[in-house]
Amino acid sequence: MDGENDTVAWVDGKVQLIDQTLLPQRYELLHIDTVADLVAAIKRLSVRGAPALGVAGAYGVVLANAEAAGDRSRYEELIESLAVARPTAVNLAKMVRRVAAVEGGHNEILGAANQVRDAEIEAELGMGANGAALTAELCGDGAVRAMTVCNTGGLASVRRGTALGVIQTLHEAGRLTEAIAMETRPLLQGGRLTTWELGRMGAPHSLIVDSAAPYLMARGEADIAFVGADRIAANGDTANKIGTFSLALGAQRAGVPFVVVAPESTVDIATATGDEIEIEDRGPAEVISVRGVPVAPPGTSARNPAFDVTPAELITAIVTDKRIIRLDKGETL
Amino acid sequence: MDGENDTVAWVDGKVQLIDQTLLPQRYELLHIDTVADLVAAIKRLSVRGAPALGVAGAYGVVLANAEAAGDRSRYEELIESLAVARPTAVNLAKMVRRVAAVEGGHNEILGAANQVRDAEIEAELGMGANGAALTAELCGDGAVRAMTVCNTGGLASVRRGTALGVIQTLHEAGRLTEAIAMETRPLLQGGRLTTWELGRMGAPHSLIVDSAAPYLMARGEADIAFVGADRIAANGDTANKIGTFSLALGAQRAGVPFVVVAPESTVDIATATGDEIEIEDRGPAEVISVRGVPVAPPGTSARNPAFDVTPAELITAIVTDKRIIRLDKGETL
Repeated sequence: MDGENDTVAWVDGKVQLIDQTLLPQRYELLHIDTVADLVAAIKRLSVRGAPALGVAGAYGVVLANAEAAGDRSRYEELIESLAVARPTAVNLAKMVRRVAAVEGGHNEILGAANQVRDAEIEAELGMGANGAALTAELCGDGAVRAMTVCNTGGLASVRRGTALGVIQTLHEAGRLTEAIAMETRPLLQGGRLTTWELGRMGAPHSLIVDSAAPYLMARGEADIAFVGADRIAANGDTANKIGTFSLALGAQRAGVPFVVVAPESTVDIATATGDEIEIEDRGPAEVISVRGVPVAPPGTSARNPAFDVTPAELITAIVTDKRIIRLDKGETL
Repeated sequence: MDGENDTVAWVDGKVQLIDQTLLPQRYELLHIDTVADLVAAIKRLSVRGAPALGVAGAYGVVLANAEAAGDRSRYEELIESLAVARPTAVNLAKMVRRVAAVEGGHNEILGAANQVRDAEIEAELGMGANGAALTAELCGDGAVRAMTVCNTGGLASVRRGTALGVIQTLHEAGRLTEAIAMETRPLLQGGRLTTWELGRMGAPHSLIVDSAAPYLMARGEADIAFVGADRIAANGDTANKIGTFSLALGAQRAGVPFVVVAPESTVDIATATGDEIEIEDRGPAEVISVRGVPVAPPGTSARNPAFDVTPAELITAIVTDKRIIRLDKGETL
């Protein structure tokens, strides 16, 4: 069935989610039929990533409509609980409110939620196609070895994702020799999720510790790097998962193209440069232990910047669902 | 008592070792009185690091002499078992054979072993003093924030170590604001051992994931970087723990001095450049799990270069126990 492997889907009157707290050890689907259960799933990170949260929230409105059964104030209460389930995820609140604004009954609301999902899938395909076209421009039509950080695949969106979606498109076209995934400490999204997605798509891949990325590039073991983005400033400076900047330094030194892949909505023209982007420090717990196992003396102090900012001058190009911006050729956003 | 906190010591007729397999969760001393037990301790990594292994082996010869009780062929058998206990540790075999070559009884052999230890401690103090003098040249007399990778402290030697020994010397002189330790995946020597040593010496410190090092440098959060070396080529190219190269790239971009600290014996004039240094790949197991906990799907392929090579052009200076070589000023080895 179309959508049965999607990260978020509407199946048999329920919201179906891949439970990401169990990956990669177990693959289980959640089938959720109450707003409270969906809010709980969002809070415990069973679903993550701005596009996936947006679609989950959109379908949550369909559940809210059924549960409220015509009680307007109950409906609004449920909508509000969905919109604030993950306060930092702007896209969640935005999509919940977009679908909740629809006039009509179940069919109209479900139609609006499906539109949110369809727009995400279309954007994913657009990024994949643009990224593959850019790869041909930069590396020729042959197969490439592509390095990436964090998880930017279908698990963070609906079906294909951003940077990893480009790698998938290359793989489907027979143009991927190997994907090299950085494990992405502290939370290991690369090790746990990206490898799992690459395995599922049948793409040849290997995992590395983060600090090996620049060295393997220097040894000539990667042809191109694809990374996602949390926010792109007007000048092209890009905030993304910690480790992105060190990968960009390695790429620059090795003369390897470094490509940012993100939906157009990630471009924030109101932010002039990366200097204006505040970087969250998530505290020591994630650094001094790994999945519950201590890896440092108890009480060790740690700095834990969750993101870093890669200056535009280190970025070859930015790929969105709508366009390719060649920063290396002086093009601007 | 002098030496009671040493990584390797001769105490009450026994070889005393800090059991490093238990750190940082537990601090326990081993008291070893047979060659077989010492060989077993070496094999299970209770003691590690070239200088520490050399001193352990030297004291092992004292045990061998007592155990053999005048039986020459038994003595030679025990010496051989010590010399090959860690085949890659050239220094172990070298020091075992040096002490075993001594003519005389218990007192002469113990005297030779003590000389091996004393020479190590003198070299450590020399590196510390030279490193601190260089820091004043590069950063002035004020206190510094120093970044480092892996474990290069007393646990790898006798008392103070190499790069971390310089940081200790700065701390003792009131010239250390903070030490910032990279955790050093895959084996986490920074997280487990360097933090423990910094705590023991009472130095302010914090831990970071490896990929955060270049970014924190770009934000101006470190004044100098000190790293150890496994081998230094004639042109200054330096092989060291994976992650050293990415730290050097970060230091170069931020304009932060990058200093290699190693005993004179690490300089290998027979190796012309880093291109001649073969880098061991230690296989996927260390990457796909952390201290026994899986962090990737079972069977995931991984690249695991244990070391990297930092080109001389990224190195500000090399500090040994005998001299300071300012590569940035065109000085050569």
